[in-house]
Amino acid sequence: MKVAKFGGSSVSNAEQIKKVLDIVNADKDRKIIIVSAPGKRHKEDVKTTDLLLRLYEKVLAGIDYTAKKQEIIQRYADIINDLEMSDDLLEQIDDTLESFIKQLKDKPERLQDALLSCGENFNAQLIATYNNSRGIPTRYISPGDAGITVTDLPQNAQVLDQSYEALYKLRDYDEKLIIPGYFGMSRQNYVVTFPRGGSDITGAIVSRGVRADLYENFTDVSGIFRANPTIVPNPLSIDEITYREMRELSYAGFGVFHDEALQPLYKDRIPVVIKNTNRPNDTGTFIRHDREINSNNVVSGISCDKGFTVLSIKKYLMNRQVGFTRKVLGILEDYNISFDHMPSGIDNISIIMRSKEIENVEQKVLNDIRQRCDVDELSVEHDLAILMIVGEGMHRIIGTANMITHALAESKINLRMMNQGASEISMMFGIDVDDADKAVKATYEYCYNGEALQI
Amino acid sequence: MKVAKFGGSSVSNAEQIKKVLDIVNADKDRKIIIVSAPGKRHKEDVKTTDLLLRLYEKVLAGIDYTAKKQEIIQRYADIINDLEMSDDLLEQIDDTLESFIKQLKDKPERLQDALLSCGENFNAQLIATYNNSRGIPTRYISPGDAGITVTDLPQNAQVLDQSYEALYKLRDYDEKLIIPGYFGMSRQNYVVTFPRGGSDITGAIVSRGVRADLYENFTDVSGIFRANPTIVPNPLSIDEITYREMRELSYAGFGVFHDEALQPLYKDRIPVVIKNTNRPNDTGTFIRHDREINSNNVVSGISCDKGFTVLSIKKYLMNRQVGFTRKVLGILEDYNISFDHMPSGIDNISIIMRSKEIENVEQKVLNDIRQRCDVDELSVEHDLAILMIVGEGMHRIIGTANMITHALAESKINLRMMNQGASEISMMFGIDVDDADKAVKATYEYCYNGEALQI
Repeated sequence: MKVAKFGGSSVSNAEQIKKVLDIVNADKDRKIIIVSAPGKRHKEDVKTTDLLLRLYEKVLAGIDYTAKKQEIIQRYADIINDLEMSDDLLEQIDDTLESFIKQLKDKPERLQDALLSCGENFNAQLIATYNNSRGIPTRYISPGDAGITVTDLPQNAQVLDQSYEALYKLRDYDEKLIIPGYFGMSRQNYVVTFPRGGSDITGAIVSRGVRADLYENFTDVSGIFRANPTIVPNPLSIDEITYREMRELSYAGFGVFHDEALQPLYKDRIPVVIKNTNRPNDTGTFIRHDREINSNNVVSGISCDKGFTVLSIKKYLMNRQVGFTRKVLGILEDYNISFDHMPSGIDNISIIMRSKEIENVEQKVLNDIRQRCDVDELSVEHDLAILMIVGEGMHRIIGTANMITHALAESKINLRMMNQGASEISMMFGIDVDDADKAVKATYEYCYNGEALQI
Repeated sequence: MKVAKFGGSSVSNAEQIKKVLDIVNADKDRKIIIVSAPGKRHKEDVKTTDLLLRLYEKVLAGIDYTAKKQEIIQRYADIINDLEMSDDLLEQIDDTLESFIKQLKDKPERLQDALLSCGENFNAQLIATYNNSRGIPTRYISPGDAGITVTDLPQNAQVLDQSYEALYKLRDYDEKLIIPGYFGMSRQNYVVTFPRGGSDITGAIVSRGVRADLYENFTDVSGIFRANPTIVPNPLSIDEITYREMRELSYAGFGVFHDEALQPLYKDRIPVVIKNTNRPNDTGTFIRHDREINSNNVVSGISCDKGFTVLSIKKYLMNRQVGFTRKVLGILEDYNISFDHMPSGIDNISIIMRSKEIENVEQKVLNDIRQRCDVDELSVEHDLAILMIVGEGMHRIIGTANMITHALAESKINLRMMNQGASEISMMFGIDVDDADKAVKATYEYCYNGEALQI
């Protein structure tokens, strides 16, 4: 059994939806389909989810929202018209939006989740109805009915383990099933959304629940590139990548597959393939637990992400003071700050985190560290970029670090930090944000077009 | 005012002691002299401190120790004879040893410290007496009388701050003062020794206490080499190095100057010079707070130390779990384990420590981590060597990392770990212990004889 998930651009209009259903109906193993909200139809278009967000903002501000609501209904009306379907659904859409607004206007965070979930939810209903009308037995199933039970924190749902057992029962249906992505139901019976881009997460959870043989993630690209194509022209694409590599790359800026979606798959080793709705016969990129490593694919990909802050602490004889680092990390924990890297020496540590983790409490954190940790020097730098070179087995190849640092030195890029762990599949380089694109280009050239393969 | 400390080989026999006193008496600013116990007189000789340790072991085992005691007394008898001094001191030495053995035989740790302190203590008395006999007003002062008050943990004395005020009064003496190194007195009135090599520490504490203009540390080499001369033939020597560089290098294996001795000096910025008793006119190596950096001295030195253990922990989505690393470090703290480096990524950390920190409790630590931290994978590797490339400002020079990794790659040395922090003066490379010497040779060549200077 396969679970197939289709992203926003794949279900943005009637023509795309027909393509999707051609793909779905062409393979009897494609039993469960996760759909996103209608995405952009052209470059200047607005995603349905963003229209819903604007509707929410108007409701919250207490101003007239009718026009905004109509705009949303019109998105679905266009699709329904083009698919020559009955417009019964439109009335239902209007009713649902009004009913959420009425019930939840005093609970803004709940209202936001409920309204945002509508983009996927209406689309799933629409697509199920249409596929049925084409003579293929198809059933819409809401996340609640499917059994996707999540934690109750708005905009940040985490799946609860009980979901997996419930989802397994989806195997009993004979029809094809269409499930909206991006949200689940809490035990308190609220709609709660996953972080944005969360349809990938729904697909992963469902894939694990039904023990799918393959999770097909359909997007608008024929797989994952080895580097960002807006920086490197025509980059190579990746045939095969491991979960751990994918996680490092998506964490560091690869937008194709939501990194949180890997967790459920990782546990049961369910393979994923990233495919192109518009070119379904292209092989795509497989994400698996293991991959074969040869001299041509040591480095899987190169990513560079911006917006990092680094806290640097110096303390003479730091390594002698058992518990010092723990105390510093305890302060970060007090402010619920998660960090990403921590290069350290005998007398200093640097803690690297996304700037958004700390920006609102930076002064408080610094004061606490000064007061509680008796440091010699404490400094903060913003605007750091993190270059990640990712590849399984890379650390076993003599000269990988040399290859990368050589490429960076030749491009006159200063390495402000470096971090490579014992069993790592990645090397991290901290660089100035202004060097970010140059660093990606230089290391890409060196890894894939240069001397790298000879080492 | 200068404080001069003379190491064991500088005071190992009559001839050396004469050299020392020629140096001391040649400069009226050399007011306070710290002496070690008599060291080896030739390669196969045994240091007095080791003779004392053997005496202690015999006493502890309850077997006849007379011969061992006589051997110790003979060391001083040889010196006294050669200096043509009265042998009154020998009786006093015998009495002191017997009295410690009698008083402390039921407190083995106290006995050990008391006996070990005798090597320095007898030598200081001998040297003071002899210099007086040459007509130079000289006074022996015990650490207790000098005011060196320390914590009460045997073999691991830490100076207490009150010492500094007491030591300042040494400035009032007109005579030259001879103080034995290596031990202080606890408030509980026990002799407590510093870690071995601790005469450097005594010198540093006294230098700070008397606000010395310079701390001269006399040894048997004309300064500090840029790399271990038993590995690199005829290495360059260092003219000037900072406290922080020295600390990194001595921590990583440079034996010339005890790293703990830097702390008191660092606080008051008292410069140190490492000089050669046998070639007192050689300039030596200055250790200061700052140094001038030019393209020829970016890298101060290269060191490689063996005997490290690395704990590697993998946990999927580790960086999301606020507090995870703190929890792991809390376990190390429970076992009083200090660690030296911690390269980390978004899903893993490697904690590098000296093997002796963990070897007795390794299984317990691993079990605790497994039980309390819900890790995906936990592994331990022993026999890691740590290569440290140390230099102030190194991180500002584009290409330093490249230079080093290139040298290592050319020598086919695999980098198992790498760590360079935001404001670091060092780069750390984790390598196999078998590659240690090769790595020092290769990086030395590259940094000092190779293309490095052109970058």
